Order: sequence, then structure tokens, then C-alpha cells
Amino acid sequence: MNKKNIVTIGGGTGHFVLLSGLKKYDIDITAIVSMADDGGSTGVLRDEMGVLPPGDVRQCLVALSEESEMLRDLFSYRFENGTLSGHTFGNLFLSALEKINGNFVDGVKEASKILRVRGVVMPVTEYQMRLVVTLKDGSNVDGERALDGDVRISEIGVDYISLKKKVRAYRPALEAIKNADFIIIGPGDLYGSVLPNFLIPELSSAVKKSDAKVLYVANLTNKKGQTSGFSIEYYVHAIEQCIGEGRINTIIANSELPDATAVRDYEEQEGPGTIVTCDNISKIGDANVICQPLLSHKEVRLSSSDKIKKHRSFIRHDSKKLAKVVIDNLAEGMGLEPTWA
Amino acid sequence: MNKKNIVTIGGGTGHFVLLSGLKKYDIDITAIVSMADDGGSTGVLRDEMGVLPPGDVRQCLVALSEESEMLRDLFSYRFENGTLSGHTFGNLFLSALEKINGNFVDGVKEASKILRVRGVVMPVTEYQMRLVVTLKDGSNVDGERALDGDVRISEIGVDYISLKKKVRAYRPALEAIKNADFIIIGPGDLYGSVLPNFLIPELSSAVKKSDAKVLYVANLTNKKGQTSGFSIEYYVHAIEQCIGEGRINTIIANSELPDATAVRDYEEQEGPGTIVTCDNISKIGDANVICQPLLSHKEVRLSSSDKIKKHRSFIRHDSKKLAKVVIDNLAEGMGLEPTWA
Repeated sequence: MNKKNIVTIGGGTGHFVLLSGLKKYDIDITAIVSMADDGGSTGVLRDEMGVLPPGDVRQCLVALSEESEMLRDLFSYRFENGTLSGHTFGNLFLSALEKINGNFVDGVKEASKILRVRGVVMPVTEYQMRLVVTLKDGSNVDGERALDGDVRISEIGVDYISLKKKVRAYRPALEAIKNADFIIIGPGDLYGSVLPNFLIPELSSAVKKSDAKVLYVANLTNKKGQTSGFSIEYYVHAIEQCIGEGRINTIIANSELPDATAVRDYEEQEGPGTIVTCDNISKIGDANVICQPLLSHKEVRLSSSDKIKKHRSFIRHDSKKLAKVVIDNLAEGMGLEPTWA
Repeated sequence: MNKKNIVTIGGGTGHFVLLSGLKKYDIDITAIVSMADDGGSTGVLRDEMGVLPPGDVRQCLVALSEESEMLRDLFSYRFENGTLSGHTFGNLFLSALEKINGNFVDGVKEASKILRVRGVVMPVTEYQMRLVVTLKDGSNVDGERALDGDVRISEIGVDYISLKKKVRAYRPALEAIKNADFIIIGPGDLYGSVLPNFLIPELSSAVKKSDAKVLYVANLTNKKGQTSGFSIEYYVHAIEQCIGEGRINTIIANSELPDATAVRDYEEQEGPGTIVTCDNISKIGDANVICQPLLSHKEVRLSSSDKIKKHRSFIRHDSKKLAKVVIDNLAEGMGLEPTWA
């Protein structure tokens, strides 16, 4: 039996969690990563060194790394003092490798060797993506970082996003999609991590045309001003506007209610209706909805993510549970079990 | 036949060149590194993060690394833009590992694994060394960095150096010296790299008491205000003031005159009498002087050193020639040949 080709499309912590779980299975993984991030350490490196944004790629590399915990910790280490403050070591690593190799993709390949990455991590494009966020009053704000920083977004709300300048897709990403048995979209911020990939028409078109089965992993929470009050249908609709109505075959969603403290913390920051639920939904259009308990009850390692310090308590997918339901669904009766503990 | 235990004591580019050559032989190398450096990228990290100075250790690790050229290049990569400008990637690597591991030595051990280091690199002390440079007019300037930056040093000249505060030696360094068959001192800046090690009385005393044969590799050039006009005897005398009169058994020196352009460039910066020669010297005290052509005629890789950009042409040891004469002398008739090409 040939190994299954799985392509994941996303960015951010959601992508990290998904890949951390999928790594344990004997499948061929290609992680396609948005190049729209321009906030934090990544934004500074992008501005100052002219490199492609390393942050989301770094998280995928760490997720798929078979190296020691030490090396993975090192990659996620964030400098705390002086001029380096806020920089993540792995971002500096990728940016230095990009400079030495002369291009981002070769830098990522070298980093993948050093980290002994199971699978392939690649950018959706080799060009800088510049996001334009259009608000509901018709005004624009520039940059992905605005999604986490500009108060107008939470006050007025996002209408849609677009790219300041068209970019070409990275050809091997299109090839991977063409050859995929399964494509997994999400979880991840809709406007910050997931949709930017589909703003590249070649990429959306490749997913549309592909024979692969498409899974969408629904988010656990909404974000204020971005996806406030969104139900799973809204997310599916937003994505299918790019990849074609009815293209998503299966939706994986969480059925479990987070504990009351976490809900309160999130709603305090993101507003009411933050928790995304899948109660009593078994179909959205023709897509099956797999509704299962998927929450993590573990302590979250603070070093493993860029944006994690904002909450005192965390609502996160359990990477093992998520990977299991994904694999069970992909491999239908093939009985694929995690191979590596 | 047991492998020979070789301990090298030094710092800076000279240490890098020596170790790069010695790596090719089937010997056990322990490189002991001064912790007095406080200039450049190293100084910034030391000040801002409170870490031990990584620069000289980084150079030793790269010299002894059996990893790919890519990884070694990465370690020596210097950021050129923005807030990271001037930082060497390997320095950030070591500082992050120190922070994650909670101490410098464990960080260096982890880095040694990642770089597949042949041998052991260790600091001379686990404490910060703060150098005080006393000038010939009796005034003091603080910090090793003053040696390369303070104009008073080239104008007035160094009388001696001392430590602002006593520190204990790193115990395994003392053990290594005790168990050494051979101890190699230098090449390297006398006040900046070599002598700081011997300002720790336990270390000087360990060398004094050791049964090891002691080799001193003489510098190729003098430094203005520091060692202006020094002959090899001066260097030997300065070191033996710490480790005991007559303790150096063999002196390795260069017999070859650098090309006229290089000499002119160096004398322009360091003053007349910059080139150290060994013409017609076969003994200094009881020590044998091995006087052979040891100059490198290769292009120097700019990325391999901290301070290398100052000269347009370089006077450097050829690491292969230097290692061969060292090993020939150590192994007397044992016919040790380089094992790794």
C-alpha cells in the first residue's frame, strides 16, 4: 500500500497542533504555509532583513521535527532582553539560512535537514504577500499584523481581505496539491492564516481541480471583529468562495465545551459568542460534519507559539485527538495507527 | 596505543586556525577558552542577556565541527541589517542554549552535539571575567574590548592586565590539564586571548604542575600598544611569568616573510616591527624553537572570524601546516598522519 499524500494548508498555532499530531502516522505530509505574516519577530525580520516571513514555517518545522526536545525548544526560544527582545530563535535561524542560501526555500530545506523534519514544509509563494484588510465601512488597513493590533478591526469589523499585489504560487506547492490524496485546511485564523493562501488564484484553482478529498478542521473560537459570532457554516462559506462551492468534503469540529474559566477569559477578550460549537450538526451542504471532543486538557508550553501569551487559559486542540479523527476519516477502515509514540 | 590528550588554551581566530588543523588527527582535544571577551556581538549579548561570552567558544566549536559546511557557515553568519546587525548567528545560538539550559556549560555541550564536535570545548571559568588593562602611565581601562578600541592603549601602551574580581577555574578544565599529554598555548592576542586564562591562579598552577609537555605557538604579528616590537622571547616571558620559568618546552614559530603588501598593510595599522620572526633562533632558554614556514596563502573566508574585516590582506597561519608541525613535534616518530581529509 502506498503512503497517502496529505497536504495541509494553514498557518499559526493551529497548523502546529495539527502537524504535531499527524507526524506520528506513516503518511507523506506536505505543509503549505502562508507568507502573509508581518507581525512580531517575523515582521521585524521581514522589514529589516527583507526576508520572507519565517514564523509560521518555523512552527511547522518544529511540529514535524524528529530532533531532540532540546533542539525544538531552542527553535521556539524567545529572547527576552535587550535589542534581541521578542525575537524567536528559530526565526533568526531561518532568516540567516535564507541569507546564506540566497533564497527562502533552500533555507527551509537546510533547516528541515538540521531539524530532521518528517515531511516537507514549503511556502505558498516565494514572493512577499502584503495583506490589505477591508473593513465593513469600506476603509482599508494594511498588513496582517493589523488583525491583531488595529483597534478599528475589533470596532468596525473585517469585510474581506485581499493582496496588495498579485503573487505567483510556489510551483511545488501546486504540484503537491495536484498529487494529494487528501487536503486538510485549518485550523487557524481565517483572515490571518487560512484565507491568505487562497488569495493566490493558482492555489485556489489547484485545490478546486484536485481529485483529493478535502477536510476542513473548524476553529475552536472566534476572533473579535474578524469572525465574531461565526458559525462553522460561515467559515466553510468563506473558504469555498475561493476553492469552489461544495469542495469541502468533510468538516472536523469539536463537540466539547471548554471549562468555564477559559470561556470567560476568551469572551472577555473576544466578545460573546466566541466559542464555536457543532451541536446537532451532521451535514453542512453535502459535507459530513464529524463532531467529536477534541480539546486539549494539557498545560500549554508557552514557548511553542507566537501569540499564546495573550490568554491566561487556553482553548486548544489536543494534537493526538485531532490527528486521530483526521486519520480515521482519511483512511476509512484502513486501520492506520500511530507508528511513532 | 592510547590516543594522546591534547589541551589547547587560547581564544580568538588563532585558536580557530589551530583547532581546524588539529581536528584532522586522531587525538583527544580539549579546547579551553577565555571568558574575558566583552567586545562586539559577544559584548552586547553579555551586557544585555547576562550570558557568558559566546564568541571564542563559537569559533572553537566551528573549528572542531564535523557537520556540513552549511551548518558551519550558518554558525559564523553575521547579520547585516537592522537591530540584529553585527550579531553572529552562532553567538545567538549559544546564548539561547545557555538560557534554555540554565548554564553556559550545558549549552556548549548541546551545541557540541548539534555541530558534531570532535573533542571538547569548555570555558576556563563559569564566571564572568572582567579584564582591567593597566597602561604604562599607571592608569586603568576596563574591559577586553578596550584593547581593540581605546586609543589610549595604542598611544600609551599596555603595562599589564588583571581581573577586576577573582574567579574560580572551571573544574573540568583543571582536570583536562592534569590529564593532558600535551598543552598547546596560543596563537592568539597576548592580552586579549592568551593571558586572561592564566590570570586564574588555579589554571596557571595546574599548567605549572602538569606532567604535560607544553608547546607555545608564537604569533605572526604584534599589536600596536600591546605587543609593539615584541620578540618571541617577550611573549614567552609574559606567559612563563604565570606558568613558571622554563615551563614551555617547545616553541613553534614561523620563518616565512609575508608578502610586501600584507606587511605594509599591517605596519600601517600596527606600527613598525609588526612582523614576528624567528630567524636564527633555535633555543629560548631551554625551550627548542621550531622555525618553519607556516603562512597561509589561501583566501581567508570573511565569515570565519570576528575581527577579520580590519585588514585588506591577512597574515594567518595555514591550519594544515601548523597542525602538522605541532603533531610532528608532539608525536615524535610516532608517524601520526591526518586521518580525516
